[in-house]
Amino acid sequence: MSQKNAFYAQSGGVTSVINASACGVIETCRQHSDRIGNVFAGRNGIIGALSEELIDTSKESAQDIAELKNTPSGAFGSCRFKLDSLEQNRREYERLIEVFQAHDIGYFFYNGGGDSADTCYKVSQLSEKMGFPVQAIHIPKTVDNDLPITDNCPGFGSVAKYIAVSALEASFDVRSMAKTSTKVFVLEVMGRHAGWIAAAGGLIEDYGIPVLLLLPEIEFDHDRFIAAVRHKVESQGYCTVVVSEGARYADGRFLAEQGTRDSFGHAQLGGAAPVVASLIKQALGYKFHWAVADYLQRAARHLASATDLDQAYALGKAGVEMALDGKNAIMPTIERVSNRPYRWEIGSANLSEVANVEKMMPLDFITADGFGITDRCREYLYPLIQGEAYPQYDERGMPRYVVLKNELVKKKLEAFEL
Amino acid sequence: MSQKNAFYAQSGGVTSVINASACGVIETCRQHSDRIGNVFAGRNGIIGALSEELIDTSKESAQDIAELKNTPSGAFGSCRFKLDSLEQNRREYERLIEVFQAHDIGYFFYNGGGDSADTCYKVSQLSEKMGFPVQAIHIPKTVDNDLPITDNCPGFGSVAKYIAVSALEASFDVRSMAKTSTKVFVLEVMGRHAGWIAAAGGLIEDYGIPVLLLLPEIEFDHDRFIAAVRHKVESQGYCTVVVSEGARYADGRFLAEQGTRDSFGHAQLGGAAPVVASLIKQALGYKFHWAVADYLQRAARHLASATDLDQAYALGKAGVEMALDGKNAIMPTIERVSNRPYRWEIGSANLSEVANVEKMMPLDFITADGFGITDRCREYLYPLIQGEAYPQYDERGMPRYVVLKNELVKKKLEAFEL
Repeated sequence: MSQKNAFYAQSGGVTSVINASACGVIETCRQHSDRIGNVFAGRNGIIGALSEELIDTSKESAQDIAELKNTPSGAFGSCRFKLDSLEQNRREYERLIEVFQAHDIGYFFYNGGGDSADTCYKVSQLSEKMGFPVQAIHIPKTVDNDLPITDNCPGFGSVAKYIAVSALEASFDVRSMAKTSTKVFVLEVMGRHAGWIAAAGGLIEDYGIPVLLLLPEIEFDHDRFIAAVRHKVESQGYCTVVVSEGARYADGRFLAEQGTRDSFGHAQLGGAAPVVASLIKQALGYKFHWAVADYLQRAARHLASATDLDQAYALGKAGVEMALDGKNAIMPTIERVSNRPYRWEIGSANLSEVANVEKMMPLDFITADGFGITDRCREYLYPLIQGEAYPQYDERGMPRYVVLKNELVKKKLEAFEL
Repeated sequence: MSQKNAFYAQSGGVTSVINASACGVIETCRQHSDRIGNVFAGRNGIIGALSEELIDTSKESAQDIAELKNTPSGAFGSCRFKLDSLEQNRREYERLIEVFQAHDIGYFFYNGGGDSADTCYKVSQLSEKMGFPVQAIHIPKTVDNDLPITDNCPGFGSVAKYIAVSALEASFDVRSMAKTSTKVFVLEVMGRHAGWIAAAGGLIEDYGIPVLLLLPEIEFDHDRFIAAVRHKVESQGYCTVVVSEGARYADGRFLAEQGTRDSFGHAQLGGAAPVVASLIKQALGYKFHWAVADYLQRAARHLASATDLDQAYALGKAGVEMALDGKNAIMPTIERVSNRPYRWEIGSANLSEVANVEKMMPLDFITADGFGITDRCREYLYPLIQGEAYPQYDERGMPRYVVLKNELVKKKLEAFEL
């Protein structure tokens, strides 16, 4: 078979282990140099393909590529950019073909979540709809854990571990202070539509911590919530609340969109946590603290799950192997084989069934009152946070995170206006 | 010499290593059982002494006491409670003497920050002013790093490491996203009056990250700040801002004040990050993300500095040794001997010179524009974050944090109304 180059890019919000998938892709491609020539990484995702900004990964040493496993964020830059449909914007697809032809690209690896799976699916149709031979493989990645078919998504295990550990630590803190000071701690976590990340906060109940979750899957009911907080504080002296950024009222309004104002009259800006804290203060008068983890949670490579890191790498590797097997329009997945001991293997899903589908938490993962997780959910979550994959630190006490050279390939085409 | 019991308590905001000081105190007392009988820990700080809620630490196994080194928060409960002066509230001092006499307490170890040093100093005067023989030793602890005389304060090194690493990781994230999404990331950190914690965020400049600090020591100037953000984003594509909760305008107003006050009368802060993000959005239109680390930073035992942990333990141990040497009204300190290699030893300070004195950042630690740290500051900070002292994790992937029995000694006195 002839040798073709590969295109790899990172898309959407990054994670602490997406670079491990990049490492899996690039190392596996290098092992098959008879079939795959160079790996060009898109600078800032698919935009790098459209603008012909292709990073020449052959310029990176084997050691630097290996160190991607220990480095959070997207080493080549990511993007929030969704291709229109072929019918809406044929010009973009023609441009992709032009760039792929100019650089002899026959393999397309796109590393992202649901929106990115849609982009990858569209690229996979270039063969059929426009007669250009390219194999498009989607490498799953999302802290939101909301891709369908796969048992879980790389990036999620590490953020789940970070949130479970951080919520535990902060709850120990509140417990220490509750007698004369803070009685309620509110932690806001990511998850606009699905409550997977907040669910990880529910694991701290196993330490006897009084914790309440506010999940997007469950309509927020002010009075029931306040009663639950009061009960926890009256019975245990304090309470931790883990709220998804996507928690919302019955009418669909996000808690974070309340239009409330602080003491200076500034509009309260985003932030479900301060809103929840303020509702508690108003109703019960408890002293509170709140935190918004935001990017800290998805960038926290310093506390990655070893399971998550292994899976991120394995899925990158599997994507390349599927391409070498002649596959197109496919995504490697994680299939859970057993819980105790936890065993998993690689499966696959057709992109037509993945693109734009969001997987919510199953209702039997959520307790009847809506504020906690069930044993089924615990069984699901614990294996994903198993093991600690620490980065190396230098003698100053800071982590050794690699920054690649990211040299661009010489352009061969005219500029393209996005 | 006769044998006396010891009282130990934790005060003020807890840290990820204050329990290491507790471990140092208790283990050292146990090694001197000829001179020191039991160690009674105050349940919730000095309140435990006033209310005669004394935890019998002899009921805890050597292993559980050793595991305090790996457990964040205050294992015996802390408090925000400041003794009045003897002249204002003689009743409280008489009660303390009554409790100390009832339980044969001759050593008083108080583990806290500036406000707590004041409490400890008042107790140390019981001998002179009320004729009751007690030796009061203050064990320093504060994430704020604002105690005088000591080179640094236990608790600070770990929060500094956590903030430096977290700001670095989130900055890598923003850099990945900046092309089509977030261009500015704002991280709010603790530090009501002194910018030590925010200064640790300045270390990420050594990775080439464009970072601006907003320190309480420097008046906030809107136009200068906005110009600095614009310059960073225009020249490097993105920018990270680390803002102290205590950042304030020239007229003394905090960027964010929630209008509530704690029991020491300090304004309860929180929410500078959303305010700063909003100012940037209004002036420059950049897409932003913000995080508020709050308790996560001071509870993050999962990323403690090994230096900090060693010092927290050593100061607890030294406090007991000073008591055995007959000292009173004193605080063991850290004296820096050299930077490269970093070497330190234990010194001491008189409590009269410690209580209620706050140490701000020296002006030569802050760059001329007010938004960064100098090389002198870097030299000061790096040794404090050296080494990673990880807790152990169980097979589920969660940390093994110890919870003590905390059995109370049988009360001998009437109840006391606080």
